[in-house]
Parts: sequence; C-alpha cells; structure tokens
Amino acid sequence: MKPYSLMSAQELAAEKSAVSAKYADFKSQNLKIDMSRGKPGADQLELSSAILETVTEKTGFRALDNTDTRNYGVLGGLPECKRLFAEILDVKPENIIVGGNSSLSLMFDYISQCMTTGAGSKPWMMQGNVKFLCPAPGYDRHFSICEHFGIEMIPVPMLADGPDMDVIESYMNDTLVKGMFCVPKYSNPQGITYSDATVRRIAALKPAAKDFRIIWDNAYCVHDINDTPDKLLNIFEACEERGSEDMVIEFTSTSKISFPGAGVSVIAASENNIKAITERLFVQIISYDKINQLRHARYFKDADGIKAHMKLHASIIKPKFDAVTDALNNQLAGLDIASWNVPNGGYFVSLDVTGAAASRVGELCKDAGLKLTQVGATYPYGNDPHDRNIRIAPTFPPVDELKIAMDVLCTAVKLAALEKF
Amino acid sequence: MKPYSLMSAQELAAEKSAVSAKYADFKSQNLKIDMSRGKPGADQLELSSAILETVTEKTGFRALDNTDTRNYGVLGGLPECKRLFAEILDVKPENIIVGGNSSLSLMFDYISQCMTTGAGSKPWMMQGNVKFLCPAPGYDRHFSICEHFGIEMIPVPMLADGPDMDVIESYMNDTLVKGMFCVPKYSNPQGITYSDATVRRIAALKPAAKDFRIIWDNAYCVHDINDTPDKLLNIFEACEERGSEDMVIEFTSTSKISFPGAGVSVIAASENNIKAITERLFVQIISYDKINQLRHARYFKDADGIKAHMKLHASIIKPKFDAVTDALNNQLAGLDIASWNVPNGGYFVSLDVTGAAASRVGELCKDAGLKLTQVGATYPYGNDPHDRNIRIAPTFPPVDELKIAMDVLCTAVKLAALEKF
Repeated sequence: MKPYSLMSAQELAAEKSAVSAKYADFKSQNLKIDMSRGKPGADQLELSSAILETVTEKTGFRALDNTDTRNYGVLGGLPECKRLFAEILDVKPENIIVGGNSSLSLMFDYISQCMTTGAGSKPWMMQGNVKFLCPAPGYDRHFSICEHFGIEMIPVPMLADGPDMDVIESYMNDTLVKGMFCVPKYSNPQGITYSDATVRRIAALKPAAKDFRIIWDNAYCVHDINDTPDKLLNIFEACEERGSEDMVIEFTSTSKISFPGAGVSVIAASENNIKAITERLFVQIISYDKINQLRHARYFKDADGIKAHMKLHASIIKPKFDAVTDALNNQLAGLDIASWNVPNGGYFVSLDVTGAAASRVGELCKDAGLKLTQVGATYPYGNDPHDRNIRIAPTFPPVDELKIAMDVLCTAVKLAALEKF
Repeated sequence: MKPYSLMSAQELAAEKSAVSAKYADFKSQNLKIDMSRGKPGADQLELSSAILETVTEKTGFRALDNTDTRNYGVLGGLPECKRLFAEILDVKPENIIVGGNSSLSLMFDYISQCMTTGAGSKPWMMQGNVKFLCPAPGYDRHFSICEHFGIEMIPVPMLADGPDMDVIESYMNDTLVKGMFCVPKYSNPQGITYSDATVRRIAALKPAAKDFRIIWDNAYCVHDINDTPDKLLNIFEACEERGSEDMVIEFTSTSKISFPGAGVSVIAASENNIKAITERLFVQIISYDKINQLRHARYFKDADGIKAHMKLHASIIKPKFDAVTDALNNQLAGLDIASWNVPNGGYFVSLDVTGAAASRVGELCKDAGLKLTQVGATYPYGNDPHDRNIRIAPTFPPVDELKIAMDVLCTAVKLAALEKF
C-alpha cells in the first residue's frame, strides 16, 4: 500500500471518503465489544475446570505431608505447591512463598511493607519523596500501586531488548530511587522479552539506595503462543554472580494458567527477603487458601504438566493473535501511520499510532462500540508523551468478534490519520 | 473443697505430695497435646466438606447475575454472598465487602491503609506516635498488628459487660489515640459479650481524632454453643442514633463456620468507609476468589442456613466446653487459687490463676507435654501485668484427649499454687 504521506490530495480524499463510509457502517451496527483487559476467554477457562474435582470429600483434603488443608496453618504455602513453582521459576522451594489468588496483591502488599517498615532500612515513608523507575509503556496496575502510595514515577523508555539500561543506570546515585517495576518476559503491553544482556545489567546494578527493590513481575513466564518462544535468563542466576539477590523480588501466578479469579500466586526471593516477607505475613494472615494450593499441585503435578496445559491455551490464543496481526498487516502495513509488535507469547499486542493521536483513535473506537484499554494507561500517570500507544488485548472476545473489532480499530486508525491531512 | 489459704501446714504438705505424684505420673506418660490455638477439630471440618461439591463443572460457575466466577472482576464480592452476610450482620448489602479467606488480613490491610493514606486524614504514620486502645485480655493477633506498625497499645481492663468504658472515654481527648480493637461477642479469650449499654457508649464516643476507627471484630457473631446464647446489639444501629457510623469497621469470616483455611471474610462499614476501602482494593487486587464466594452462597443460602449449620458445630463443641468447665469445677472450685468464665459461645475459656504465676503453670504444662497458648499472649506486648491469665482453647483435641489435658492443667495450677506456700 502507498503511504498516506505520499498520496496526492485526490487520493487522500478518495481514501477518506471510503474509510469514513466504512466507519459509518460500523457505527450503525451498534457493536459492543470489549478488548480492554487481558482476560482469558470462556474456552480457556474450560481447560481448567476439572481442577475443582481434584480436592473433594472423595479425594480427601490432606497434603502429602498429611496437613489438613481445610484448617489453619502452613503460612508460606504447601510444600508440593512450593515445589511446583520452584521448578517453573528454577529456584529452590525454600525461596518460594505461595499466596492467595492475586499476585497483584502480593506486589501491593510488598510495596506497602516497604513504605511502612522499610526493606532492611527506615520505612520508605520516612525517607522523603521516594521514586520508582517505570519502564514504559508498561502495566497500568503497577503504575497505580506507585500512585496510591505517592511514589514518584520516572518513565524509562522500552527498547527492543528491554528497558533502556543507560537511563536506569543514570539514576543509581539517587538514594531516593527505591526500585523498579519489570515485566521481563512478554512485557505488558509490547510482548518484549528482556535479552540476557539486559537481565545481566539489571543484576549488576549498584544502587546507592541499599533498600532498592526490583519488582520482577514474571506474569507470563510459561505463556508462549508459538513454537519459537522467547527464553528469559533466570534473574537470580544473574544476581548470584553479583551477590545482588536481595535486590529482586519475583512474582508470578496461575491467573492465566488456571483461573484469573481463583488461581494461586507466588513470590520467589532471596533468603533474606523471604524472611522479611514471612515476618510480615505472620502478622497479616494465618495461612492462604491451602485447599486451592492443593488443587493446583494435584492438577498440574509438575512443570511438564503446566507446560502441556499451556499448549492447550496457546492453541486457543494463537488464532486470536494471528487475527490481530493479520488485520494490522492487511489494513495498515505500508501506510506509514502505525507500527506494532508480533509477540511470541503473553497477552497483548502493542500498537503505536504514529500518524495520528492515539486518544483520537480511542474516541473513534468507543463511538463505534469497541472498548479498548484506556488510551494512555500504559504510561505512568496515564500520560503517554506522544499520545501514541494502544494496547490490544485479543484473548477475551471470540475470534469472529475479534476480527470485527480489529476491522473497527484499523478503520479508526486510518480515519484519525486522514483527519490530520 | 477447702481453700489452700485455710489449710494447715500438714494439710498443705499432704496435698502437695499427692499433687506432685499426680504431676509426675503425667510427665511419665510422654503426652503431646496441643491446646494453643482456637482451631476447629477434624469432625467440625467434616461438617462443611460438601461445600466443595457446590461449584463444579456439573453445577456450573455462574453467579445469579451470570458472572463467570472463574474470571477476573467483581471487586467487592458476589451479590448473593453480600446478601448472605448482610443478613447475618443485619446491614445492607451495599455496606458489605466480601474478601478472601482471612478477616485478619482485612484488618491488617485496613490498619495499613490508615498508616499509609489515613482515614479521611493525614496518614497515621505522618501524625507522630499513634496509639490504640486494647481491651485486655484480648486477641494476640490484634496486638501483633499494632506492634507491627509501631502503634502504641494502651491496655483497657475488661469488665463483665465489656471494656471499661470510663477508661476508654478518658482517652477521647488525645488526638493521637486513633482507634480500638474489640471482639464484642464471645470475646477472645473471656467469652464476654458487650452489654447493650456498653455498645451504646461505644457508639456515643466523641474522639478528638476525627480519624478514630473501631475495629469491630465480630468473629463469633453466630458461634453460640448452647440454648441461652448472648445477644449483641447491632453497633451500626447504635451508631446511627449518634451519626457515628464512620467510626466503626466490622469484620467477620466463615473461618469457624466452613473452613479456617479456605473460608470467606467480610467487612461491614458505612458508605464512606466502603468507598475508601474500595478505592484501595481497586489498586490492591482485581477480585477476591469468587468461586469460593459462590460455594459459600450456594451451600449456606441464607442466615437460617448458617444458623442451622452452627447448631451442628455446637453439638460437637459443647461437650468440649463442658469437659473444660467440669474439670475446673471438680478440681479447682473452692481452692481459692483460680477463677474462670463459663461462656455461651465463642472458642475459649479464660482461666485466671490467682494463687500462682500463670507463667509457672505454663511451664509445668509444657514440661508435661501440654501446649497452651503462650502465657501473656492475651495482653499487649505479651505483658500480663498480674501474670494471671491462661487461654484455654478446647476445640481442637478430641474430648478424651481434652479431658487429660484439663487434668494436666488443673494439676499444674494446684502444684504452682502449692509451690508458693
């Protein structure tokens, strides 16, 4: 296709007339499609439904060590569940805490702990105006945690192999810079996996703040969608070489393995950090839901069990990602008004609108009945400096609906660009 | 029986010889009995096992409003679960938040919220050395929360009808006194239910601190064990008369209704407080485990369902409480070395050792293989000023074992008293 910028006035007018007509047609259809969040589709949920049959009166409620999972106790998680996630994350079981249904809560609670009691330091709240490095575009829920606690966010540009490490390193002398949020594999929203070199540079950071903490949100650790998955270097292996294990707290969950509303969440951390977190957990909770932990351990058994299960997810998700990239390729390639990534896993496709304002695209989609992630949400304070990024979450709508949604989106991108000529 | 204080030296010597022999006999038996925590017994857990059959592939995962409980969403809890607890607590469903498996976490998280972001006020952490009123003896986990956050605890004596309100009222001018922990029905450990007059005086408090918050831990709201249960006045009804609803946050859970490790927890609060808590929850979690909420709503259906279920618990627990009070009556009554309560519900019997040090009794029990709640734990900072209180948790051991445990305990109380003569 010919780039809009090279089209004649006549060509542009013809194109605008055609695109406007198509958009008007969508508007008249009273569509109602939600592509705003990274929610698994109904067919993905069915994959795990049998998990509920694994712990019943018939099967019994006892863990392998004979713990009655219905009663109080076992603060850090069931041993068999720890082993399962230790294998997945390639750490030792004693470096694992298994939590409740939300890794977001584990992260929030950890930041809250740092604010109120510090990280082997004075409480962050008592140290002045603390700051976090936030690779952007990134996950809006991370940014919300910072905002909630009044932690100043410093956006760090994302490059093809992870966050711009030069920028990150330039902040290491500031003792008020207390940490960083990372989604190191299939990053939200770009689907970028940090390169080995990036992971090693992160492990080698020498922050002036001894209580600097990296929130390593490995949400998509096993969420490959094709046969050429990305490989992420184990951050703790890299840290070990540098003696920097205390700097990193890793999180993951089964929200997109079993159930988003009823999975289990996981922390992996150094001995010191496990100790500090456990001391707080001892006051915060008597135990997380061990019946649900037992369900997961019994159902998935081991890392191979999880990997086999993730292939089933991939078989459902892959056609959806294909529908997204096919639409982008067919409708936008060559126009020179947008660029996008084609990820090997994760939950999102990130679209950068270079020929128009993303906010205008969002408006046009909304008016045509397509709900996107709030434009801007992928940046700290909702402030996308170039008004460019749109997060596409293809998993929730069925494929047919998704195709329509992409058609609407591409039409809106074109119309918004044409409006500018 | 004759009080020890009135016995002759000869009588005391004979008694000491007999009690010592009995104690030595227990020691030789290598007993291992745990009466340290308020844990339901295995037979109580069986009562609720069928709850796990209520949400399966066969029954489906949809709530009444068609929400797929497996997926993300519904932050404040499923409507049918809200209705269930609204009926139990006699509030409106819109004043309810249904949480995860731990009301302790809901309390910890609320205090944490007040510390970091205040309660319609400056963060408590930024207001100086804040303090809490702590009726004592009380629940050690409440005291741990205060200690964790560096909140200074002010012990308030418990009277027969609740905390000493004169003492509480005397602190209302101190703007650094930010709240109070209460277990208003079948208090832990004494089993005292606050009188209507006490509840009304609490609702009528006029704290100088506008961000004063009462943590109303109604853990035992439906936990009656006999046919003459205590009645607790609805605190929100009393507050309504005074316009003080924002001062109280009520908590409960099904930990001792369904499963201690896998129940659901509940907040009841004013519109303003629900709003403030929801704003924080929006950042902290996407949703609690709605599958488990659905299980509880389907299994118990309504308040009558819960009440019928609690009668089954009572039929198991009552003989245990009887075994405790029978042993105390038979072995200690009239000796003038101890006093105790006979509660109509809850999970504990509170024993005050007046003729010896409770810590010595604890030591003797431990040496004979009986694990009690850490002596002192029922007071702030573990500091029982009179070294007097022992919390008896009768529910976990089977009745036969419990009878032996009580025999050991009574023998230890006698021996500790005799050692002082």
